[in-house]
Amino acid sequence: MIPTIEWHGKYVRMIDQRKIPSRLEWFACRGYEDVIRGIQKMVIRGAPAIGVAAAMGLAMGAGSIRTKSYTTFRRKFKKIAGEMLLARPTAANLRWAVERMARLVEDMKTHPVDEIKSALRKESEKILAEDIEVNQKMGKNGQSLVPDRATILTHCNAGSLATGGYGTALGVIRAACENGKKIKVIADETRPWLQGLRLTAFELMEEGIPVSVIVDNAAGSLMRQKKIDLVITGADRIAANGDVANKIGTYQVAVLAKTNKIPFYVAAPLSTIDPTIKNGDMIPVEERGPEEIRQFRKLEIGPIGVHVLNPAFDITPAGYVSAIITEKGIITPPYKARIKNLLE
Amino acid sequence: MIPTIEWHGKYVRMIDQRKIPSRLEWFACRGYEDVIRGIQKMVIRGAPAIGVAAAMGLAMGAGSIRTKSYTTFRRKFKKIAGEMLLARPTAANLRWAVERMARLVEDMKTHPVDEIKSALRKESEKILAEDIEVNQKMGKNGQSLVPDRATILTHCNAGSLATGGYGTALGVIRAACENGKKIKVIADETRPWLQGLRLTAFELMEEGIPVSVIVDNAAGSLMRQKKIDLVITGADRIAANGDVANKIGTYQVAVLAKTNKIPFYVAAPLSTIDPTIKNGDMIPVEERGPEEIRQFRKLEIGPIGVHVLNPAFDITPAGYVSAIITEKGIITPPYKARIKNLLE
Repeated sequence: MIPTIEWHGKYVRMIDQRKIPSRLEWFACRGYEDVIRGIQKMVIRGAPAIGVAAAMGLAMGAGSIRTKSYTTFRRKFKKIAGEMLLARPTAANLRWAVERMARLVEDMKTHPVDEIKSALRKESEKILAEDIEVNQKMGKNGQSLVPDRATILTHCNAGSLATGGYGTALGVIRAACENGKKIKVIADETRPWLQGLRLTAFELMEEGIPVSVIVDNAAGSLMRQKKIDLVITGADRIAANGDVANKIGTYQVAVLAKTNKIPFYVAAPLSTIDPTIKNGDMIPVEERGPEEIRQFRKLEIGPIGVHVLNPAFDITPAGYVSAIITEKGIITPPYKARIKNLLE
Repeated sequence: MIPTIEWHGKYVRMIDQRKIPSRLEWFACRGYEDVIRGIQKMVIRGAPAIGVAAAMGLAMGAGSIRTKSYTTFRRKFKKIAGEMLLARPTAANLRWAVERMARLVEDMKTHPVDEIKSALRKESEKILAEDIEVNQKMGKNGQSLVPDRATILTHCNAGSLATGGYGTALGVIRAACENGKKIKVIADETRPWLQGLRLTAFELMEEGIPVSVIVDNAAGSLMRQKKIDLVITGADRIAANGDVANKIGTYQVAVLAKTNKIPFYVAAPLSTIDPTIKNGDMIPVEERGPEEIRQFRKLEIGPIGVHVLNPAFDITPAGYVSAIITEKGIITPPYKARIKNLLE
C-alpha cells in the first residue's frame, strides 16, 4: 500500500495525490509552510490525513524554532499552530491534531526545548500509527453491517490515501473483504477533483476488489434500479447532533439512499467528531476557486470568465445517516446522546 | 444565435458541439452517413435537434438515391430510414422525425421520384422551422410558471443548441427574461459531456442572462440552502404515463427538488412524447463507452483499464414531475389521461 505521508529524515514527504494515478510522485516538505501549502493545494486531502499532516508539519515547524527559552518557543509554536489551523476550514481532524500537539507543548513546559521538539516529532508519529490502528478497528466494527455479495456505493475517497492508511469507508470495505465477503464497489467519480475515479478506483484495483466508476449523476439511477445495496462514505466533520460535513455531493447520495430505502453509513474516527459544533449548519464549508471546475489541467473548458460556485463540502442532516461507524463502535440514532456518551 | 444545424447548398452542416466553447466549427455532412455519425458522436445532441438532423439526413440520403422507380426509391429510402433510426436509442424525436419523413414518401407514391426528393427536403426545412416555433410557444406557456427574480436550476443543455433554435428548458428561461423577469440560472455542469458548463453557460452568457455553473454534486446542497426556486429540464422521451427519460442525473435532481419542496418542470415538445411506451422503465437507455468518463481529450485520467458504467440517460418517475410544459399548454398530473387528451 502506498504511504500517504511519512517522515523522511528531518523532512516530511507526502504522495502528491493530484497526480495519481498518472504518476506516483513525492511532494517534499522542507518546512511547515510546505505542509500548509500541500494541504491547501490538495496534495494531501481527506480529514484524517490532513490531521496527520498537520501534526507532522507542526513537529517540523517546532524543530526549526531557534531558541532555548520555553516562553519564546511556546510563542513561536503557537504562531505556527495558528497558521496550520487556517490551512483548510472544514476538516475537524486538523483542529484535533493541532490541539493535541499544542497540549503537549503546554504539558512539557518544565522540560528543555530540545526534549519538547523530539516529543512533538514522536507525537506526530504516534498520531499516524494510531490513525491506522483506529481505521482497522473501524473496519472491524463496520464490516458487520456489510452483507456478503453486497454492492457498495462510495463517494469521494475515504481510503488509505485519505488517512494515515487503511481508510475509513474503504477500511470497512477492506475489512469486509478480509472477512471473506464478496463485495463489489461502485465509486462516484466525485467532481471536481475526481477522487473517486483517480484514487478510490486506484486503491481498490491495487487490492483486487472489484470496482466500477460512474459519474456522480448516475448514483441515483443505479439506486432506483436496485443495483446498490448500501452506501458508505467518510466524513470531514461530524457535529454534536450527528450532522455530517463531507465531500460535496454526499448530501445528494444520502437523500437518494433514503428515497430508495438503502442504508447510508458514515465511517469516521472520533477525531472527526466536533462536540463544540451543535449542528451541521454551523460547520464552516470551504468555497474553493472556480478554476477547479472551469479548467482541466490548466485548459479552459467552459466559456471564458464563466461564473462558478464551488463549495467543497456539504452537510448531510443526521436524519439521513443510518449509522456512524467509529473505532469505539457503531452509533445509531439518536445521535446526540450517543455521541456524547461515546466521547466521555 | 448560433444555428444548430442548417442546409448549406446540397449538404447539411451542423455546429460541432463537442468543441464549444473553445472553437466554433462546422461539421460538414456530405451524405446521410455523416449525419448518423454526427448524431452518434455527439456532434449534435438534444432530442429535438436530433429529430431535425434525422429529417435533414433522410432528405439528403433520398437525394442521393439514383432511380426513377418509386418502388426502388421507396425500398432504398426505407433502408436509409432504418439506419437513421438506430443512430441513438433514447430520443423520441428521432423516431418521430423519421416516421414523418417516411409518411411523406408513402403519401406521394403517385408522384415522380424527383418531386418526392424535393418535398422531403422541404419537409426537413419545415421540421426545423416548426421546431423553433414550437419552442417559442413552449417558452410563452412555460414562463408563466417562473416567478420574477427566480433562481432556476437546469441540468444538461436544453437550449438553442439542443433544438432547431430557442430551446425547450432554456426557451422557457429566455421567454421569462423577454417578459422582463429578472432570472438567475444555476447550470449543472453535467458530466460526462459537460453540456451545462460548455453549452448552457455559453448560450446564456451570449444573451446576458446571469448564470453560475456548479458541479452536479452541488445541486442538492444549494436546494437545501434554499438557493434554488425551481428546476426546469428538457426531456429525451416521455412515456404515456408521464415518466421522463432525460440526461443522466435528472432523476437525482427531481428527487432532491421534491425533498426540498421545489417545483420540478420538464419542457418538451409533443414530439418528445412517445404514447407507444407505457412507462419509463420500457424506454431504452443508451449505455455509452467508458472513454467518456475515463478520458479527457484522449488523456487517461483514471487507472488504466478501470471498469466504468456509463448510462447516458435516466428515468424520472412522473410522480416527481410538477408539470410538463408543451407547445399546446402545461400538463399537470394526472399525466396519463391528460397526455392522451393533448395528443388527440
